[in-house]
Amino acid sequence: MNPTAAILLIGDEILSGRTQDSNGHYLAKRLTEAGIDLKEMRVVSDEHAAIKAAINALRGRFDHVFTSGGIGPTHDDITADAIADAFGVGIDVRADARAMLAQNYNNPDDLNEMRLRMARIPDGAALIENPVSHAPGFQLENVYVMAGVPAVFTTMVESLLPGLTGGVPLGSVSVRIDRPEGQVAAALAEIAKAFPDIAIGSYPFVTDSGFGTHLVARSPDKARLDEVEKHLRALR
Amino acid sequence: MNPTAAILLIGDEILSGRTQDSNGHYLAKRLTEAGIDLKEMRVVSDEHAAIKAAINALRGRFDHVFTSGGIGPTHDDITADAIADAFGVGIDVRADARAMLAQNYNNPDDLNEMRLRMARIPDGAALIENPVSHAPGFQLENVYVMAGVPAVFTTMVESLLPGLTGGVPLGSVSVRIDRPEGQVAAALAEIAKAFPDIAIGSYPFVTDSGFGTHLVARSPDKARLDEVEKHLRALR
Repeated sequence: MNPTAAILLIGDEILSGRTQDSNGHYLAKRLTEAGIDLKEMRVVSDEHAAIKAAINALRGRFDHVFTSGGIGPTHDDITADAIADAFGVGIDVRADARAMLAQNYNNPDDLNEMRLRMARIPDGAALIENPVSHAPGFQLENVYVMAGVPAVFTTMVESLLPGLTGGVPLGSVSVRIDRPEGQVAAALAEIAKAFPDIAIGSYPFVTDSGFGTHLVARSPDKARLDEVEKHLRALR
Repeated sequence: MNPTAAILLIGDEILSGRTQDSNGHYLAKRLTEAGIDLKEMRVVSDEHAAIKAAINALRGRFDHVFTSGGIGPTHDDITADAIADAFGVGIDVRADARAMLAQNYNNPDDLNEMRLRMARIPDGAALIENPVSHAPGFQLENVYVMAGVPAVFTTMVESLLPGLTGGVPLGSVSVRIDRPEGQVAAALAEIAKAFPDIAIGSYPFVTDSGFGTHLVARSPDKARLDEVEKHLRALR
């Protein structure tokens, strides 16, 4: 059994439709490659109660919970406080986080009160380094709190993933059928029944020349994938 | 108070990172324009228990719940059954849904058993028309169940929205600051305090020429937006 994961994206800008998520999509791909089963993704607004409730709903159900957003210097960056509250621990500016942040500024006065918010770390958390802009993320038990800026988020993900290993990476095969789903659905159901250990998905598409279907099988077992691929190709 | 909403996207293909969501992003924009506050978005896998639990968690908390995905003809299309179960009602092939579907086929035999799955409708639901491919969505109380294929999803959304009206559309102003967030955060916090009725977000970005920040204010009150915009521009 692969370890399981959830992603929590924090930000009104996604819910308003102003920004399209890219961090969740990026991490989803990377988790699949790493053999970690992403079971749920959520987007909640920049509200203390919403963040706290989501963290407490997810951290007990999945092996890993990754968050993105809300750890910058502005008044709407409240993720760290909400997570401290979710765990029932204190939070304050921490010396090691402050030292990381200070690398950004030649003049110590530039590390002003608002910027220092980025050094507020819940008690007991481990820091996640941020080589891009030096404001650290943090890990508290199985919750990994990362920045919303994509360049920072992806760097943090890449530094975390090797340590999470776990499970055999999931392979996949994809077969394109130039017929509508409905014509292959019955035969596909038979294949799914014959390979209960393999996750098989069916994804319809439309092109100028008509309806088609992508069939995708996923498994850590390369030999079983080769076998199911033959059956899927026979549907073409 | 505007009505509230949640979006539930159903599909392993998003969680595996194979597909990037576009339906959630589209609906998020349209809800904002319609004056409906999107408070949460979730993605769950094609698993009966996951869909049922998410529906029951969301439908009691928000005025409207919109779903996308899992209502096609294949074995992994289990949304309708999971939603019937969530509401504790029966589900079966319904004559009006079957008649809609039948428009697709000149030969009645083409409406095979797997395709007929798309006419399975929970008891008590109202149909949502699908002018693109004729397999209907449905509405059960405050839950709107729509297709995952983007061309169908967007058409269903556009036919639904006028009937949901409610609330005054949210306007927004956006001000670009060519300085890093940390330099404006303190002044921005003062503005946010002075305009407690207006949602103000801060979105950092990086360009070749350095760090910058988009400040976005949202409100249904045009006059208040004009006023806060002056203050935001003064930060440039």
